[in-house]
Amino acid sequence: MQRAIELSLNGPAWGVNPRVGAVLLAPDGSTLAEGWHRGAGTPHAEVDALSHLASPGLARGATAVVTLEPCNHTGRTGPCSEALLAAGVGAVFFGVADPGRASSGGADHLRARGVRASGGILASEVEQSIRPWLTAARTGRPFVTLKWASSLDGRAAAADGTSQWITGPDARADVHARRGAVDAIVVGTGTVLADDPALTARNPDGSLAAHQPTPVVIGMRPLPAASALWRHPEPLRPYETHDLDAVLADLFESGVRSMFVEGGPTLASAFARAGLVDEVVVYLAPVLIGGPRLALGDLGVPSLPDARRLVIDSVDMLGDDVRIVARPAPTLTSVPPAPQKESARVHRNH
Amino acid sequence: MQRAIELSLNGPAWGVNPRVGAVLLAPDGSTLAEGWHRGAGTPHAEVDALSHLASPGLARGATAVVTLEPCNHTGRTGPCSEALLAAGVGAVFFGVADPGRASSGGADHLRARGVRASGGILASEVEQSIRPWLTAARTGRPFVTLKWASSLDGRAAAADGTSQWITGPDARADVHARRGAVDAIVVGTGTVLADDPALTARNPDGSLAAHQPTPVVIGMRPLPAASALWRHPEPLRPYETHDLDAVLADLFESGVRSMFVEGGPTLASAFARAGLVDEVVVYLAPVLIGGPRLALGDLGVPSLPDARRLVIDSVDMLGDDVRIVARPAPTLTSVPPAPQKESARVHRNH
Repeated sequence: MQRAIELSLNGPAWGVNPRVGAVLLAPDGSTLAEGWHRGAGTPHAEVDALSHLASPGLARGATAVVTLEPCNHTGRTGPCSEALLAAGVGAVFFGVADPGRASSGGADHLRARGVRASGGILASEVEQSIRPWLTAARTGRPFVTLKWASSLDGRAAAADGTSQWITGPDARADVHARRGAVDAIVVGTGTVLADDPALTARNPDGSLAAHQPTPVVIGMRPLPAASALWRHPEPLRPYETHDLDAVLADLFESGVRSMFVEGGPTLASAFARAGLVDEVVVYLAPVLIGGPRLALGDLGVPSLPDARRLVIDSVDMLGDDVRIVARPAPTLTSVPPAPQKESARVHRNH
Repeated sequence: MQRAIELSLNGPAWGVNPRVGAVLLAPDGSTLAEGWHRGAGTPHAEVDALSHLASPGLARGATAVVTLEPCNHTGRTGPCSEALLAAGVGAVFFGVADPGRASSGGADHLRARGVRASGGILASEVEQSIRPWLTAARTGRPFVTLKWASSLDGRAAAADGTSQWITGPDARADVHARRGAVDAIVVGTGTVLADDPALTARNPDGSLAAHQPTPVVIGMRPLPAASALWRHPEPLRPYETHDLDAVLADLFESGVRSMFVEGGPTLASAFARAGLVDEVVVYLAPVLIGGPRLALGDLGVPSLPDARRLVIDSVDMLGDDVRIVARPAPTLTSVPPAPQKESARVHRNH
């Protein structure tokens, strides 16, 4: 399964389909073939692995190890459960059950046809590897990452609004790499009017990254015709509303599974206040600024016990800056099965 | 010298005298005796080492390795340069020159009497080990550590002022250990009126630590007679002024070499604005609070290029919290010789 997870990471982090890896094993435990999913419209991991067999007959009696439960429906590709049955696979081990409304049930279908099918193998590692996609599939809205950069004293800009560049090149490169791995980037109209951001994912040499997130603007103020966002490689999606649930539902409907909320403070606070944040990525620059410009505004937290508790996933140095990645602390009432608290990882990147 | 530095750390971090370690070596390189300084009024490291010789005659022709240049004046104890000469030591190697106005010149004195004396051995390690004392000796004011605890979004308290406890027990224990290693703790009158802090250094079991910092309050508002600070084991020193230079000069005069500035935001900002901060210790709790309560207020930074740049010394996890220690970035105009930038150290404590 460890190998299947590794294979899955070859696929793209964005898009409506999850990253999935598959390994086909002979009865003696040797590897017959490997496969992974390369994105919507391409063969699923199981089918990809089957296509790499030295001869099709080798699948007869083989064991398939797949990170995600084989799908059970015909979308742009046929159902994997059928493909595995047709190939004569004898057993299927998978990490996490498919939460998709249409695609789940693959394991039951296999079992009904006499194939041994067991889930839960390295489940928490698999959860971790496709957490955004699983969260989106379970909640029916995109996985939301709230990102900001600030000084050590929590300021996102100086008094005059200057914020380029609080953080250094390594932190900025990390932001661009993360932008290139999500489906959408969301900002408020205030940020567009103040900063006129490009919201592209760029390589360290300044060129555009291969995958570009869709730029989304939320807010009531009209966007100037000259805004850089109109020239984004992906068409701009403006939402003249304050209804975040409606925006998220519409984005999910159109295939957005993961998104970056990059501010400003009003929009970032609105997401946090509404409990619509699945991950927080903070870049802290070693600098003191003071003054009124904060990354987050009012969160509706009257007293300390009402504060939004997080769990830190990692703390890293990126050049001179510190990156902290955190997620909401699991609560007893949370509906999605929260993965186990991973012990925080602290290390230097270079 | 490495061993001498280790020995020096046995001494107390607080007080008017620095931590110093000394090793006496025979001509064949074997160790004859070791010593360290135990605080003002006790024998200096060199004299302590001489007192541990198996017989006094062994010092004849020996080499003394001392972290700090041997002193050259009679304070509560006699000059170490004389003690080394009287013992017949043949050579003295030291790490850092004594910056004291009265006590410097020991090396010249030794050389004038025919003893080889060389400084600069592992100088940057020695600088690091007694940075607060050296900074104080060179600037004529206490070494100032600005400390605060905040949420990940930079808030020191919730809207209603509640701030106990933003950070967890490990971070609080670290604060108390650091309080127990400085000469004074300084807060503003606003903090006394709002929080009525004890400002004691306490052990994890709640008992008072062996060494207590002197509590200092700066500000114009009168302190209530019932304030907990009046019951601090060390007498409270209130300063009814906004003149930080005068306060620091007076504290230095009375023997304070290191101090913790613990807020509130007005006082902390005043120290930062005046460039009177030698070290910043920030505890970040994995929590989002929002709202108006910040650790630092206005720093007089109109635009980003005017921000106060720091260099991060270390980033550590303390329980669920992150501790960041930083110092002002060296500038071309800074008078004290800034130690080389150490590469930042990031690790988990447990």
